[in-house]
Amino acid sequence: MTAPLEMHDDSRLIRLQEILASGAVREASGLLRSLASAEIAHMLESLPPAERELIWNLVDEERDGEILLLVTDEVRHSLIRHMDPDELLAATANLDLDDLADLVQGMPRAITAEVMNALDDQRRKRLEAVLSYPEDTAGGLMNLDTVTVRPEVTLDVVLRYLRRLGDSVPRDTDKLFVVNRDDQYLGILRLSNLVTHDPEETVAEAMSLNMKPIHAQESNTQVARRFETHDMLSAPVVDEAGRLLGRITVDDVIDVIREEGEHQFMGGAGLSEEEDMFAPVWTSTRRRALWLGINLATAFLASWVIGQFESALTQVVALAVLMPIVASMGGIAGSQTLTLAIRGLALGQLSTSNARALLLKEIAVGTLNSLIWAAVVAVIAGVWFSSMEIAILIAVAISINIVSAAIAGSLLPLLLERMGIDPALAGSVLLTTVTDVVGFLAFLGLATLFLL
Amino acid sequence: MTAPLEMHDDSRLIRLQEILASGAVREASGLLRSLASAEIAHMLESLPPAERELIWNLVDEERDGEILLLVTDEVRHSLIRHMDPDELLAATANLDLDDLADLVQGMPRAITAEVMNALDDQRRKRLEAVLSYPEDTAGGLMNLDTVTVRPEVTLDVVLRYLRRLGDSVPRDTDKLFVVNRDDQYLGILRLSNLVTHDPEETVAEAMSLNMKPIHAQESNTQVARRFETHDMLSAPVVDEAGRLLGRITVDDVIDVIREEGEHQFMGGAGLSEEEDMFAPVWTSTRRRALWLGINLATAFLASWVIGQFESALTQVVALAVLMPIVASMGGIAGSQTLTLAIRGLALGQLSTSNARALLLKEIAVGTLNSLIWAAVVAVIAGVWFSSMEIAILIAVAISINIVSAAIAGSLLPLLLERMGIDPALAGSVLLTTVTDVVGFLAFLGLATLFLL
Repeated sequence: MTAPLEMHDDSRLIRLQEILASGAVREASGLLRSLASAEIAHMLESLPPAERELIWNLVDEERDGEILLLVTDEVRHSLIRHMDPDELLAATANLDLDDLADLVQGMPRAITAEVMNALDDQRRKRLEAVLSYPEDTAGGLMNLDTVTVRPEVTLDVVLRYLRRLGDSVPRDTDKLFVVNRDDQYLGILRLSNLVTHDPEETVAEAMSLNMKPIHAQESNTQVARRFETHDMLSAPVVDEAGRLLGRITVDDVIDVIREEGEHQFMGGAGLSEEEDMFAPVWTSTRRRALWLGINLATAFLASWVIGQFESALTQVVALAVLMPIVASMGGIAGSQTLTLAIRGLALGQLSTSNARALLLKEIAVGTLNSLIWAAVVAVIAGVWFSSMEIAILIAVAISINIVSAAIAGSLLPLLLERMGIDPALAGSVLLTTVTDVVGFLAFLGLATLFLL
Repeated sequence: MTAPLEMHDDSRLIRLQEILASGAVREASGLLRSLASAEIAHMLESLPPAERELIWNLVDEERDGEILLLVTDEVRHSLIRHMDPDELLAATANLDLDDLADLVQGMPRAITAEVMNALDDQRRKRLEAVLSYPEDTAGGLMNLDTVTVRPEVTLDVVLRYLRRLGDSVPRDTDKLFVVNRDDQYLGILRLSNLVTHDPEETVAEAMSLNMKPIHAQESNTQVARRFETHDMLSAPVVDEAGRLLGRITVDDVIDVIREEGEHQFMGGAGLSEEEDMFAPVWTSTRRRALWLGINLATAFLASWVIGQFESALTQVVALAVLMPIVASMGGIAGSQTLTLAIRGLALGQLSTSNARALLLKEIAVGTLNSLIWAAVVAVIAGVWFSSMEIAILIAVAISINIVSAAIAGSLLPLLLERMGIDPALAGSVLLTTVTDVVGFLAFLGLATLFLL
């Protein structure tokens, strides 16, 4: 369904690659100039390192800063690594303070100091204030380009004030912020109200009081949930004293939501949501090695369990042939429960108050499914190895493993979250450990007890 | 990090459950009345069926329609199932046409007909027009509440027009749409421009021409990508003749992005992004059974491969003990590559033009990691079973499997997409099949050739 757009992106990428291969540098620069910064960012992320580097050098220098802000952290680092200090300094020249803050955080210390020195006193102080908030909080997310008005003036005065400001009113402004003499946030004046109300009304009469400000320490996730719940386009950010610091706009929130989704998806494979598809081979190898190592430890644990039943395995070869089925069915059933629970946690829909209800439901679903599939497997395995004992054995082992998987899949995410461990990252490894160990133990253990 | 908000949600949920348990229905109604519709929707999704039903009956009838629009498809169906026709008809009474369209699609046919009959001619025709676009296209996503102006009038006239419209200008309006006499889309007039430009200017002078309209047939995914690339708050939707049909606002786009992320994450476990955490046990069992069945087939395939080497397994028990390690290492390595490729495809960053670069990089990463971990496994296995042959054997088998996994993980998603199969859904099952079969075949096959 997404084919047309991809074809489009793709055809431009192919054309650019062709142009580069033919060495027509000037033509490539022209093509780049016709693209939006976000499109160039997207293209850079799609290119292998050598071509990425080539294209990056062709981008107009005054767009460098803007594009660096749009690529993922990892790609940004790969681009910054090859820039000399002068280029980096130039890239920061045209940026707003809040964008500058985002960019400076990924730069070498020496450059950051130089950037700071190049600013006047007032701007440096404001930049330091923004940098004091962690990146994943409202303070780190906010923009500083608020337009503020006082409650006592009339709408007509506001209109005249805005006309005087002209182009310095940000293009995506949907509301003005009403503050008192001490810069404390009072409410919002929507542009849609400004243009529909009588110009003789005061701001105090036309403003809305029901938008609660966001505190600078609030987490990104909370901010995103608030935007979603109330369908907001922008929202005010305040400090502990209620003073207006800046605003968060919905386009920044979209990035947070996109990253949350990718975090769940990528985390299950031990990858970060910032992962660069074309990271250098060594970087990727090192990162993936860690995950493979952790999983190897759990695999050896499962092997050790199997090793405890060597005599059973040598006496009945069917056990070796069938044991992966027992482990695999538990793993699949468990991953379904785990996935549901992790999403529930991420959306704030699963908590201790309804965990018991989920656990009971998942045990019920697991029990029913284990009855169905234990029967199917029993028939196939029984016929395959002409053995009633094998059939009964595998049926019981699969049932035990699927129900254990439902329990582990429901409880692990909550347990991990309570321990401060990210369930999206650690959940699947731990679940597999449980289903492998329980699966092999149940199947081979029961076989040793009843078959030999 | 998200604890404060969740505690908050949680404490309300617990309080509501306590109130319900104590039978204080009036108090519960009061609590519900104090919540935003989105908050009630969120709460309904977090509740098991019996309590969900109870709460739903306590919600004020005039809010039913709004809340039904906010819950996921599955939860909506569970709520609608218990409503009688009169209640359903009442729920649709206060809705805008586009919201009505969203709701009507999930209702029984008889109700839809009744809803249609209750509308006047003009509204019925417009509703039919909206319903003619599939849900996952721009036409299905759009709202009909556009405010349009003509290019030849002055901004002053526009301001007076808006004041006359008053509250019927939607609250989240950030731009007006400029159309000609035939309702064909010409450009946009941002409210921020309307309030900063000289009132004597004409709309033609103050409007922006560079916002390309979205065609009603465009897919949701394309629309979301466009909003992200250009940081848009709202955008015009037109028909084939360029006539303005409606607008898409960023809050609808956020839902699309959220669902895309969940689709990738849930799809890997064979679940739908609409999955209701508290779906009825039978519904869940039936759905999950299908996925377990598909996976059982691949597990039996792996077992059949193992079964071909019965004599090797009876002669060397170490093979049975170690073989899950070979399969597991391939599975983990492959899932990392697969995850990266599926995300690349979803973001439109992976296509045939750079697939070769990804494949080569993943083979390089896989080769390096297979060298590292094959050595580690070889040492441990060699010592465990005091056998140099076993050590060499497992090292070679693991290397083969990890490199095969890298190839399968890179190519499968592209192949599936070309075949029109959703890689997020089918990718992991197929990959596991490859890594299990290749793993067991390499390990047991090589053992048969060289060890016996």
